Amino acid sequence: MFMETKSFQTLSKLSQRPVDLTKDGVLTPERIGKYAMKGEGFDLLYGTERVDDEVIEALWGLAEETDALKKMGLMQSGEVMNQIEGFESERRSVLHTAMRDVFTGRREEKAAREASDQAMRELEKLKGFLEGIDGQFTDLVQIGIGGSDLGPRALCMALEAFHLPHRRVHFISNVDPDDANLVLAKIDPRKTLVVVVSKSGSTLETLTNEEFVRERFAREKVDPKKHFIAVTGEKSPMDDPSRYLASFYIWDFVGGRYSATSMVGAVMLGFALGYEKFMDVLRGAHEMDVHAREAKLGHNLPLFSALLGIWNRNFLHLPTVAVIPYSQALIRFPAHLQQLDMESNGKSIDKQGNRCAYSTGPVIWGEPGTNGQHSFYQLIHQGTDVIPLEFIGFRHSQHKTDLSIQGTTSQEKLLSNLLAQSIALAQGQKNKNPNKVFPGNRPNRILLADRLDAHTLGALLAYYEHKVAFQGFIWDINSFDQEGVQLGKVLAGKILSLLAEKKQGSGSFPLGEALLRFLK
Amino acid sequence: MFMETKSFQTLSKLSQRPVDLTKDGVLTPERIGKYAMKGEGFDLLYGTERVDDEVIEALWGLAEETDALKKMGLMQSGEVMNQIEGFESERRSVLHTAMRDVFTGRREEKAAREASDQAMRELEKLKGFLEGIDGQFTDLVQIGIGGSDLGPRALCMALEAFHLPHRRVHFISNVDPDDANLVLAKIDPRKTLVVVVSKSGSTLETLTNEEFVRERFAREKVDPKKHFIAVTGEKSPMDDPSRYLASFYIWDFVGGRYSATSMVGAVMLGFALGYEKFMDVLRGAHEMDVHAREAKLGHNLPLFSALLGIWNRNFLHLPTVAVIPYSQALIRFPAHLQQLDMESNGKSIDKQGNRCAYSTGPVIWGEPGTNGQHSFYQLIHQGTDVIPLEFIGFRHSQHKTDLSIQGTTSQEKLLSNLLAQSIALAQGQKNKNPNKVFPGNRPNRILLADRLDAHTLGALLAYYEHKVAFQGFIWDINSFDQEGVQLGKVLAGKILSLLAEKKQGSGSFPLGEALLRFLK
Repeated sequence: MFMETKSFQTLSKLSQRPVDLTKDGVLTPERIGKYAMKGEGFDLLYGTERVDDEVIEALWGLAEETDALKKMGLMQSGEVMNQIEGFESERRSVLHTAMRDVFTGRREEKAAREASDQAMRELEKLKGFLEGIDGQFTDLVQIGIGGSDLGPRALCMALEAFHLPHRRVHFISNVDPDDANLVLAKIDPRKTLVVVVSKSGSTLETLTNEEFVRERFAREKVDPKKHFIAVTGEKSPMDDPSRYLASFYIWDFVGGRYSATSMVGAVMLGFALGYEKFMDVLRGAHEMDVHAREAKLGHNLPLFSALLGIWNRNFLHLPTVAVIPYSQALIRFPAHLQQLDMESNGKSIDKQGNRCAYSTGPVIWGEPGTNGQHSFYQLIHQGTDVIPLEFIGFRHSQHKTDLSIQGTTSQEKLLSNLLAQSIALAQGQKNKNPNKVFPGNRPNRILLADRLDAHTLGALLAYYEHKVAFQGFIWDINSFDQEGVQLGKVLAGKILSLLAEKKQGSGSFPLGEALLRFLK
Repeated sequence: MFMETKSFQTLSKLSQRPVDLTKDGVLTPERIGKYAMKGEGFDLLYGTERVDDEVIEALWGLAEETDALKKMGLMQSGEVMNQIEGFESERRSVLHTAMRDVFTGRREEKAAREASDQAMRELEKLKGFLEGIDGQFTDLVQIGIGGSDLGPRALCMALEAFHLPHRRVHFISNVDPDDANLVLAKIDPRKTLVVVVSKSGSTLETLTNEEFVRERFAREKVDPKKHFIAVTGEKSPMDDPSRYLASFYIWDFVGGRYSATSMVGAVMLGFALGYEKFMDVLRGAHEMDVHAREAKLGHNLPLFSALLGIWNRNFLHLPTVAVIPYSQALIRFPAHLQQLDMESNGKSIDKQGNRCAYSTGPVIWGEPGTNGQHSFYQLIHQGTDVIPLEFIGFRHSQHKTDLSIQGTTSQEKLLSNLLAQSIALAQGQKNKNPNKVFPGNRPNRILLADRLDAHTLGALLAYYEHKVAFQGFIWDINSFDQEGVQLGKVLAGKILSLLAEKKQGSGSFPLGEALLRFLK
């Protein structure tokens, strides 16, 4: 369906001679002023992408032909989106947006309304819980992996400037025992809450780490029952009042990588920021949800970002995307986006089960600027491959403290670098010394907001969630399952039984045994 | 020269039909046992790469034809390696190996010997300095960016399990004022050493952050002169006893991204680990240096890793590499490798100044496993693109504490997952449900060692440094300069003057001004 659209043909033709940003008179101040889109407190500056009016028109045409906006509406209404037609698959609604549809004007479709009712009940429960524990705990340890770790951790670090005083948050995710040991060295169990997150209540890494931490609490004679909280599915093995101080619920219709605004992130962020500031995160996300659903073609920010990505991926054939926040607080945000994007759209079959004849999700990677400038930017400017960039910047810093040195503040230096890189990458530089030549035409765009606070962060999170979902809609793939993680799990289980049952040499898994020999 | 070798032709031909790992009888226990190389405490398992005996022979032939080993010898002897023939360029020796050539049997070539003499003097100075400050400081803040940050930080985190008690290390790198503010909130200036690292003594971000921190010390009436240390070039503007408690020197012949074992990493690691344990890092690195120089074709670990990378990059045409340590302690090691590799080999001209007609440095990215399994592995297993993987694993954990749950320890679970992923990626899985099909043939290899201690980490660091250098030698590019960072700096400077001199609207940099308008 993606390749059969008229727009696909048009875009293929246009991609034969994409605009050359290095040519005199192309990258002008007028172009920069004109190629900008505004909404929900963000500016998206895309004059440095290799697009022109024709390409942009065809991209919007692609969104129209593939019903991208309609599918976003259906998703937020609770339609079953998570399936492959004609084959056994998960067949579920995708309702992370309901987790923050808890303000006025809520969705009225049955599934969406039920989901947001449930979300509101959990939020109320959380509010009461946080009031009840006030003053008792200084530290919180979140045990979870994948979506129960990356998104929450990225948000937690992004808002560290706004954490309540004397509240510290730690994360244990990896089954590597060194991960848990390092965290345990930093806390006093008597003053620590432990939040264990697993939807199924059966994630190997998480349960292992939970036992690890329980064992430590027991050794120090601290009753886990008064310190451990479960965030899990209702009636999962972890939903057990005899073992936990409290349970907060999550549901099948919220995928792990979309779960940061559910109780998966809420308990930890509510503790760190206070309930009301956490609600600002939800408010920001909700406003972006409404925008993604209701902003029309030509005005829809995450949809346009999705389309620019598709232009770079499927028509300019660029296999990776670097996301570079010019904000140290967003240091783990690219790791969250890596999961969000690559786990959602790293798929090879369309929703009818046919093999895709086109590229889907790219490799997503990134580090904060300006740090990256002193690292991998060499390759971005002068390497043999072209890497499209998505910059994220903020007009103001989080902390009010800043200092003017040589006539400019640190924040001004940060932003000057961001703007300069955008121009340098697009425009390049000629030189007689081949080592000083910059080929330019490195496509990039800037997403700009006022200040990285709770509200803006919520909106930014949702912006990327919807960018990813839109790309999946347009590629006609299922962005909401993850069959690709199963095979590794099965084989790891086989090796674990070899070890647990001392069956090495039995020949039950010869390849595993061949590798295990190297562990001796 | 790369493309003109006989081996290049052979490899091109062989790459028309690379071995199919998913075929019955190809990926066997015998293959796994046979395709393994040993050295310096490491095992390199490459049965899951798409190579066979013919390819391997041709790869070693490529190393021979391109004089890779000879160039490694010249580099370690202090020959001028950092230049482009016939054009203005840096024209320097590349002697990071001399920083650890401080044990018995030192290199005797003049440049190398002088460099290692200098390194030994600085080490002696450091030893005395650390003895002198014993008991005075609890915290150390390292201010640096790029190579003065990523490598040292990765090493510091990797060895956190071995830090001396009551010594904490912090890093400030980004010019983002929020970065410095967050760190300053955690320290007591009276008990804090500040290490400022800049070879030139003029790195904008670093000097800005230094002023930021000095200002805070002044406010708390703590004399910076008794707390600040300079790590810089001799006679740089920062080499100033009136402003610093001590100066430690670095030299032009040690590039930033190769500087972690120079004073750039030494002062901080010596403080955190103690001088003797830091010397273990040097010892491990030095042993790998000798191996890289002296181990013959067929037995040289970093050279073989370089060759496998070239096979994947230039013959299987795979544009990225994921480095996945199954060790949480290595969480920032991929970020260091990203700089090391991409800044070294992200080049488009050969050493004679000709445009390369072949691909050079790939995009390097990665996160620790098992975490990645719950994130981007979906795309790695089932995406439309193939991502080669370099796994890193250790037989034993750093901390002695581990716990057996369901019959296996955490460390066993970690390793089982690593081995299982290697097999799953190579072998794939057939299925009638297209969503459960794993195409396999995802090339990967495992680098395995006993335990991540100071010695092993030093060796691992040097292994990657030499892998990168070998690839540069074979591609015939200059891996030791970074002209690609200049243009952005120049343009950022222009924007900064617009701001500092309030010249917006002057038309001196119209594109910059067009972007600045969005900051209002």
